Amino acid sequence: MSNHKIVFLPHETKITVPDGETIIHAALEAGVHINASCGGEGVCGKCRVLIEDGTVEGGTSEKLSPEDQDKGYRLACQAVVKNDLAVRIPVESSMDASVLRRHMTPRKTAHIREMNFDELKEKGLFVAPVGKIFLQLPEPTLQDNLPDITRLISYLKAKHDEHRLDVALSVIRKIPDAMREKDFEVTATLVRPVRDVGKTRLINVQPGDTTGRSFAIAMDIGTTTIYGQVIDLISGDVLAEYGDFNGQISYGEDVISRIVYAEKPGGLQRLHEVVMNTINKVLDKIIKQSGIDHEDLSTITLAGNTTMTQLLLKINPRSIRRSPYVPAATLYPPTRAKDLGMAVGDHVSALVYPAVSSYVGGDIVAGVMGAGIYRAEKLTLYLDVGTNAEIVIGNKDWLACAACSAGPAFEGGGLKYGMRAEKGAIEDFSIDPITYEPMIITVGNVRPKGICGSGLITMVATMFEIGIINNLGKFNRDLETERIREGDGAYEYVLAWKEETQIDRDVTLTEIDIENLIRAKGAIYSGCMTLLTEVGMSLQEIEHIILAGGFGSYVDLEKAMVIGLLPEMDPAKVTFIGNGSLMGARMSSLTNRIRKDVVEVTHKMTNFELSDTASYMDNYIAALFLPHTDIDQFPKLKARLETRKNR
Amino acid sequence: MSNHKIVFLPHETKITVPDGETIIHAALEAGVHINASCGGEGVCGKCRVLIEDGTVEGGTSEKLSPEDQDKGYRLACQAVVKNDLAVRIPVESSMDASVLRRHMTPRKTAHIREMNFDELKEKGLFVAPVGKIFLQLPEPTLQDNLPDITRLISYLKAKHDEHRLDVALSVIRKIPDAMREKDFEVTATLVRPVRDVGKTRLINVQPGDTTGRSFAIAMDIGTTTIYGQVIDLISGDVLAEYGDFNGQISYGEDVISRIVYAEKPGGLQRLHEVVMNTINKVLDKIIKQSGIDHEDLSTITLAGNTTMTQLLLKINPRSIRRSPYVPAATLYPPTRAKDLGMAVGDHVSALVYPAVSSYVGGDIVAGVMGAGIYRAEKLTLYLDVGTNAEIVIGNKDWLACAACSAGPAFEGGGLKYGMRAEKGAIEDFSIDPITYEPMIITVGNVRPKGICGSGLITMVATMFEIGIINNLGKFNRDLETERIREGDGAYEYVLAWKEETQIDRDVTLTEIDIENLIRAKGAIYSGCMTLLTEVGMSLQEIEHIILAGGFGSYVDLEKAMVIGLLPEMDPAKVTFIGNGSLMGARMSSLTNRIRKDVVEVTHKMTNFELSDTASYMDNYIAALFLPHTDIDQFPKLKARLETRKNR
Repeated sequence: MSNHKIVFLPHETKITVPDGETIIHAALEAGVHINASCGGEGVCGKCRVLIEDGTVEGGTSEKLSPEDQDKGYRLACQAVVKNDLAVRIPVESSMDASVLRRHMTPRKTAHIREMNFDELKEKGLFVAPVGKIFLQLPEPTLQDNLPDITRLISYLKAKHDEHRLDVALSVIRKIPDAMREKDFEVTATLVRPVRDVGKTRLINVQPGDTTGRSFAIAMDIGTTTIYGQVIDLISGDVLAEYGDFNGQISYGEDVISRIVYAEKPGGLQRLHEVVMNTINKVLDKIIKQSGIDHEDLSTITLAGNTTMTQLLLKINPRSIRRSPYVPAATLYPPTRAKDLGMAVGDHVSALVYPAVSSYVGGDIVAGVMGAGIYRAEKLTLYLDVGTNAEIVIGNKDWLACAACSAGPAFEGGGLKYGMRAEKGAIEDFSIDPITYEPMIITVGNVRPKGICGSGLITMVATMFEIGIINNLGKFNRDLETERIREGDGAYEYVLAWKEETQIDRDVTLTEIDIENLIRAKGAIYSGCMTLLTEVGMSLQEIEHIILAGGFGSYVDLEKAMVIGLLPEMDPAKVTFIGNGSLMGARMSSLTNRIRKDVVEVTHKMTNFELSDTASYMDNYIAALFLPHTDIDQFPKLKARLETRKNR
Repeated sequence: MSNHKIVFLPHETKITVPDGETIIHAALEAGVHINASCGGEGVCGKCRVLIEDGTVEGGTSEKLSPEDQDKGYRLACQAVVKNDLAVRIPVESSMDASVLRRHMTPRKTAHIREMNFDELKEKGLFVAPVGKIFLQLPEPTLQDNLPDITRLISYLKAKHDEHRLDVALSVIRKIPDAMREKDFEVTATLVRPVRDVGKTRLINVQPGDTTGRSFAIAMDIGTTTIYGQVIDLISGDVLAEYGDFNGQISYGEDVISRIVYAEKPGGLQRLHEVVMNTINKVLDKIIKQSGIDHEDLSTITLAGNTTMTQLLLKINPRSIRRSPYVPAATLYPPTRAKDLGMAVGDHVSALVYPAVSSYVGGDIVAGVMGAGIYRAEKLTLYLDVGTNAEIVIGNKDWLACAACSAGPAFEGGGLKYGMRAEKGAIEDFSIDPITYEPMIITVGNVRPKGICGSGLITMVATMFEIGIINNLGKFNRDLETERIREGDGAYEYVLAWKEETQIDRDVTLTEIDIENLIRAKGAIYSGCMTLLTEVGMSLQEIEHIILAGGFGSYVDLEKAMVIGLLPEMDPAKVTFIGNGSLMGARMSSLTNRIRKDVVEVTHKMTNFELSDTASYMDNYIAALFLPHTDIDQFPKLKARLETRKNR
């Protein structure tokens, strides 16, 4: 797909965007404000721009007079970029754009890093977990009537130097027919030991030559969503991927409510069955999608937080939610997938990622493995933000970790008009610093219904930096705009008027919402601070930030630094790995080296119970400001704010 | 119970019998003939004897005149020994008893050997398979919030020097509740590795101190019957035992018909379920009988022939019955008992005895282990006779084995009036060499219905030795008795006349029955001969015979040697171990040493497929005589026969 260059006038802000992008999204990326109230649906008509050079597709509307359309005016939210353009923001939309210019920054999201199978091989980290060997066995006679399995094993020993094999009962059940189906030509599937002292397990025997087909499945068992991938163990490719909501959601949104349910009579069994139903749905989907044969599947590697893991394994998670927060186990033995209720062959093993503690679970360990922090030279901060935020800091020499309850603000929860990042959620925002008119963009470009986490961060950061919100999170009551008003018990900013929304009410951002966000970001920032304090280091020493989880994919890094959620550093040093849990599960599926290292890594990860760490509360209270009580921790922001003050 | 001495007159044959024995049984033991036709029910009135000294209980009858009763006559089958006696056999019953004397020998059964736990210990063969350790764990705090299982394992390491533990998922499921039920006082159950390189498995954790209770179960999975024992692993005692018919009997009497059924669609699944039903019935019975708690049970060790084992493990036995007779496997991995369908706890392992070949199964290997042949200095012949006869010959240096199809004659099958050794079966027999009148004793002392295996052997041996049957198994047609007659297509001997039986027909022994017996004993004897030939030895070198199986418990050894079923040797050198399969299973339950040795033993046991061994058919044909074509193999019998001929 081709890219196109756009110059936004009058300030000649340049950006390159892919073919098919709308002008309003291009403006957002470039940090150019255009008033827009309807989320991108084209009904408010405020986002008119003049196409001075080049042509666009669409963008005409009854909101524009035929004359204006003839002149080249288009609605920015409806006009699609198909070639290079010069776009002028009309003065009524941008006002004194020179002011805007100083405060708007282009949107910066983290560099995305994906797992690379070849890199694994290059770094010597690839140790094949599964071997398939094709055998042409001699036919039995009265003089040579070894048992079928002995025939196979002797041959493997003699011709393939395979020793110390453990044989599964399921293989013995299959072997008489498998051997005789294709004249004693069979393929043996060998699962290699993780440690040298271990035994190779013979898990399957198939008629004929199936050595070209060897697959595994990686799964992320999230509190909200369950993802699965089919992985080709030969090429390293992902052949199919599918995600679905964890059926347990009906029994509570977060881990605590799941634990409460599990404590009821029959509750554990129920939650176990429900998550298995979702897992089986995902398995069925990806197996069908990839067209693989169940017989060619060897392992299913699963990663999840400690509560999800215990429910998956049908272990009562009761003590996880009670001080002193003790999980039943953090290392789980390999189990037959079928015994757990998975609809796969007898021979398939379920391998469950180890955890560190009740609140730093296998999903985080998987992320640490997937992101390679345990091998990193640089001091790295790994952050997985959801309702709970997990923090890992360290490098190849040491790792410290902690979990904190951020509350649901980052997922749009607990806000007056909060919602998940679904259709109609305001996900992007800018504001005209003169008129205080907003530019709102919603998921799906429809009229707004509410605010999601990324929108919230961008709003609060933007408003804080131009002085609409002060460092306590309160609105400036002196501004001349009807958008800031005293609402139902708290001051609020009207993002969209009733008639512009889908909900027949004004959509607003309230001071209570801002307080929630400050508490959430404060919990995370102080978690990082506390971990660093405990190991005798400072935030300034962090050289690399890795974001995991849905959150990291959309957050504007500069904005996250403005509110003090992330420490201030070059956005180029922030990496986004997406679903770290799934990535780690995939890596463990692909190479035994990771499975070997992981146990060592979990032992290396020092867990801090923040509630039991003296400095945490102090750090937390200090972080309940925008960006922080100690503004010196954010020197670039401090400089910008001083420039603004002195203006 | 007290014993009493009896002197039988006129020949002053002496015997000591336990209190409560009947006189007719005492006579049988002593080798004294008394005519008797009704099996011991007291209705024929033929077995009148004169009590010359001492008194008996019962034995009066309307078959005796009041005068005779006053004189001291009693019916031998009804008179119970209560003190020392002198008993005269009336001349009309014994005729020229001096002749009898020369040919009747006292009944000799094998010396019974039972397993001895203390002996195991003395010989250094006791290596405890299960350890239970009571632990008083420190309670978790925020400063010490290790996962439950880690707390347990660390403590086991630190305080009990237990390393390299494998943890079962079922333990992780139990541990949160178990630890908290009795203030962190728990008992850990550790299953020790069979080999030094193996890992100890932590299979259970129970609240409080349960170290005094540790149990295992041993089972013999027979084609006909399934036996189970609960074993106290601390004392070595058998706490309960129960046997029941294998429910698979409805699907065929022998292994071949079971295999045929298993090959039908759904047949394998059905037979597996049916045997599991019987197993669960036996388990339920012995667990209840012994009053043990399921939680204190660690292992179930099962031994059975190869077909029974494959059906138990749900492995299709198809190729077992087809040349070249290949089983799927002879070594079976430990399996969770519950996965096989046994109604026991998640933590209980099922350990299945390894086999040698399709027809020398785990039951025989268990017998070899139980009888200790693999440790013996003496050259030993181990014989387990049923429909199939399994033969093992060897000592601590080498072991050779084979199986042969004896046919059902030893179990009373295939005979005109054959039956199992159930009520009404003629199990013992003697004959008056002058009148050819029989003395028949039935199981349950009721009127006869048919002939069982032991009765058949005794009849044929007795008749052969006094010349009623010749060495081809044919009746002497010249004898003056109406009992020998040409029956329905074959000559036969009338054991009991119609009016004396329960079946309203004469019960007879036919020449066809004798032929069946000769073929059966010929198969076994030639099997032994062939094995010895293959290893370059002779029957005369055998120093010890061990009989296993139901057969060995009742067979009259001298008679078995007369027909050429067993080689001629001192009956004192024959040992009966009963259910060798169950004994071996019990030993493996008690000590890991046996489980370690058994694999080596199976590798040592050289299996001969008789059908593929050239000398077998020659040996077989030579054995189709009474006792054998080569009478020199039976020197004592030869001498007795010559004495008779010369008389």
